[in-house]
Amino acid sequence: MGMEVMCFDLEGVFVPEIWINVADHTGIDDLRLTTRDVPDYDQLMRHRLSILDREGLTIDDIQSVIATLSPMPGARDFLDWARSQFQVVILSDTFYEFAAPLMDHLGHPALFAHNLTIDENRRIVGYALRMPDQKRAAVEAFRSLNFSVFACGDSYNDTAMLLAADRGFLFRPPATVIEEFPQLPVTSTYDDLRSSLIAASSRDIH
Amino acid sequence: MGMEVMCFDLEGVFVPEIWINVADHTGIDDLRLTTRDVPDYDQLMRHRLSILDREGLTIDDIQSVIATLSPMPGARDFLDWARSQFQVVILSDTFYEFAAPLMDHLGHPALFAHNLTIDENRRIVGYALRMPDQKRAAVEAFRSLNFSVFACGDSYNDTAMLLAADRGFLFRPPATVIEEFPQLPVTSTYDDLRSSLIAASSRDIH
Repeated sequence: MGMEVMCFDLEGVFVPEIWINVADHTGIDDLRLTTRDVPDYDQLMRHRLSILDREGLTIDDIQSVIATLSPMPGARDFLDWARSQFQVVILSDTFYEFAAPLMDHLGHPALFAHNLTIDENRRIVGYALRMPDQKRAAVEAFRSLNFSVFACGDSYNDTAMLLAADRGFLFRPPATVIEEFPQLPVTSTYDDLRSSLIAASSRDIH
Repeated sequence: MGMEVMCFDLEGVFVPEIWINVADHTGIDDLRLTTRDVPDYDQLMRHRLSILDREGLTIDDIQSVIATLSPMPGARDFLDWARSQFQVVILSDTFYEFAAPLMDHLGHPALFAHNLTIDENRRIVGYALRMPDQKRAAVEAFRSLNFSVFACGDSYNDTAMLLAADRGFLFRPPATVIEEFPQLPVTSTYDDLRSSLIAASSRDIH
């Protein structure tokens, strides 16, 4: 009957993909590249930062774009329900400086993410991953604190966390992830996910 | 410029002492005993549960009382500010079943606490500490995830967490704790605490 910690990914679960929306809003198509196009994350990030630099975009410009983004329909209600039933921590490989305006929309759940390096002219000059494989490490830390851990995410960088958790759920994943991780149950709506979490909990929740 | 996790104690920092208020509301003076009267925590909890049993009080009765309690004046505003600036986790040695109505008032920050054992007649028949020394262990876990950790609490069971944190702050502690832990800065109002946290942060917060 112990309490469960519930770890959620952010982009694709509660909010739209940040870089894609920044590309849409700024009209800079080069920013659409993802890890599918450039498999090396560090190379991809350097590419993105060089584009921001080339276009003269500061963190304030990017935050203004992100502030116009809304959580996905139903996200806030679902998250509020989850927070009333579980101890929720968001595990995201985005950056605090990007996520901040979205966290306002979501009512400030605890977020474990990374940091950008911003210079005195508000240019984004670098980034610092807080640690490698931070999602899996956080799940293992919560388990070491004697919590049962549930986790939910949508993509490749979530699978280590989902497999490390007591119960892991995919949410609207791409077909390739479903195929590669057949052991992970797939959910496609918040109602779906809510039912799965209720069934998985050892507690009498609703 | 890394993000800080901020760990807060619950009772005495955001909400009044739960057992004392249950004693007040039920008129059962025996429930006023604290660890100052009965130093052994297990003995104290068994005593409390035997009183609830003797008086025929169920978890529903206790939760009804707790639902009438309010956070301390200014607590919600201060906590909302803290959640906008830090990643907040509440570390409390109370029980989830007691804290639940108070978490509604506080907007459901993540809470690391313990569980009661409740039988089919809703009687509280036991309790399960999730782990010994859970507050210190949680601070160490967050540090192992490469966060700077700030912590704030009011009493003896917080001191291990405050000393394990990068920065620990006492909030309205008893004189004995101040005397015994002169290395821990003392704050006495939320404004005070806010100023101390702003000064302690490596980030430009306000």
